Amino acid sequence: MKLYDTQMAPNPRRARIFIAEKGLDIPRQEVSIIEGDNLKPEYLAVNPWGTLPALELDDGNVITEAPCIMRYLEALHPEPNLLGRDPLEAARIEAWERFCEMNGMQAVGEFFRNKFEPFAERAMPGYSGVKTIPALVERGKQRVAFFHAQLEKRLAESEYLGGDRFTAADITGLCAVDFGKGVGLPFPEGNQATARWHAAVSARPSAAN
Amino acid sequence: MKLYDTQMAPNPRRARIFIAEKGLDIPRQEVSIIEGDNLKPEYLAVNPWGTLPALELDDGNVITEAPCIMRYLEALHPEPNLLGRDPLEAARIEAWERFCEMNGMQAVGEFFRNKFEPFAERAMPGYSGVKTIPALVERGKQRVAFFHAQLEKRLAESEYLGGDRFTAADITGLCAVDFGKGVGLPFPEGNQATARWHAAVSARPSAAN
Repeated sequence: MKLYDTQMAPNPRRARIFIAEKGLDIPRQEVSIIEGDNLKPEYLAVNPWGTLPALELDDGNVITEAPCIMRYLEALHPEPNLLGRDPLEAARIEAWERFCEMNGMQAVGEFFRNKFEPFAERAMPGYSGVKTIPALVERGKQRVAFFHAQLEKRLAESEYLGGDRFTAADITGLCAVDFGKGVGLPFPEGNQATARWHAAVSARPSAAN
Repeated sequence: MKLYDTQMAPNPRRARIFIAEKGLDIPRQEVSIIEGDNLKPEYLAVNPWGTLPALELDDGNVITEAPCIMRYLEALHPEPNLLGRDPLEAARIEAWERFCEMNGMQAVGEFFRNKFEPFAERAMPGYSGVKTIPALVERGKQRVAFFHAQLEKRLAESEYLGGDRFTAADITGLCAVDFGKGVGLPFPEGNQATARWHAAVSARPSAAN
């Protein structure tokens, strides 16, 4: 196996942390998003969508999309369980994992990519070719505030996002929160439940990825 | 069980078609998105995110998000299999199911919601509170064109989106394509592979949902 990766990007980080939590050692190949290497023919031959991460299997098959990579690795290496021990827990974890992706990571991405010059001609991840729209910087900010508020509400009621134990939902939650922090949109200082949770998940060795 | 549903909306349709393919009979309760009933306290008590569909279990637990509902029902009713018979097929199906959601349904939604007056104060599904941005009408159109092109390319090589049989990827693909058609963005007439696939999946009794 080989993981196509971008060290500085939040989506590949979801896969890296998942792999670390599973105790797996999968070689990585760096593909620079900033340089646009993900849209060059060599990488498009691996993943026509131009997105990272992608997992290449030994037989040449390629699995795209962080959640698909997680689910594939969970099937091969069931322990420690990160995607749910029964159908209801799995649904809970996936719902929060998706929420953190669509309302967290994508919202931060909307703020960041519409602001950051190198992405002027590619405001969305991968090969969509859409241009930036300045109004989306503000909208991204507003959506991130919504995300932080929902996170705080959930974590005031639940130790972890998926329930009472660490799961894939926390991985994507952490990646979204840290991505926000990295581009100037940290969670509000008063969000104590989020602060408690963030300290706990950041202290796990996997978070160093 | 009870499915909170909106007859005219594409996301709940994913769940309805999935349920029909499984041969299940689950009572539905209509929640009007146009009237904004999904953002009223009664429904927010069911799903704080205000999104449809949601599946309420007999014990009161609620499963949100179409893909989570699909996965839950697949675990309870494994046949006919719609989400993959092995980890690699499951990854392939989920990747295309996600692609149709994020690049198809969300792109059409971007075009439609930023144009359609009743959504002026809620340009995204659920309880995000973001206002419309006129430039997103054009961007949505551009993204839908990208989606249609990717679909055509895939379906020229593969009978169905997930591989050689009908799966959940085709359900979300159909919902995305029909949503586009319904708001004035049909797939291009020359897209013969898409036309062949669309006729086949539309002929299934489940598509009447």
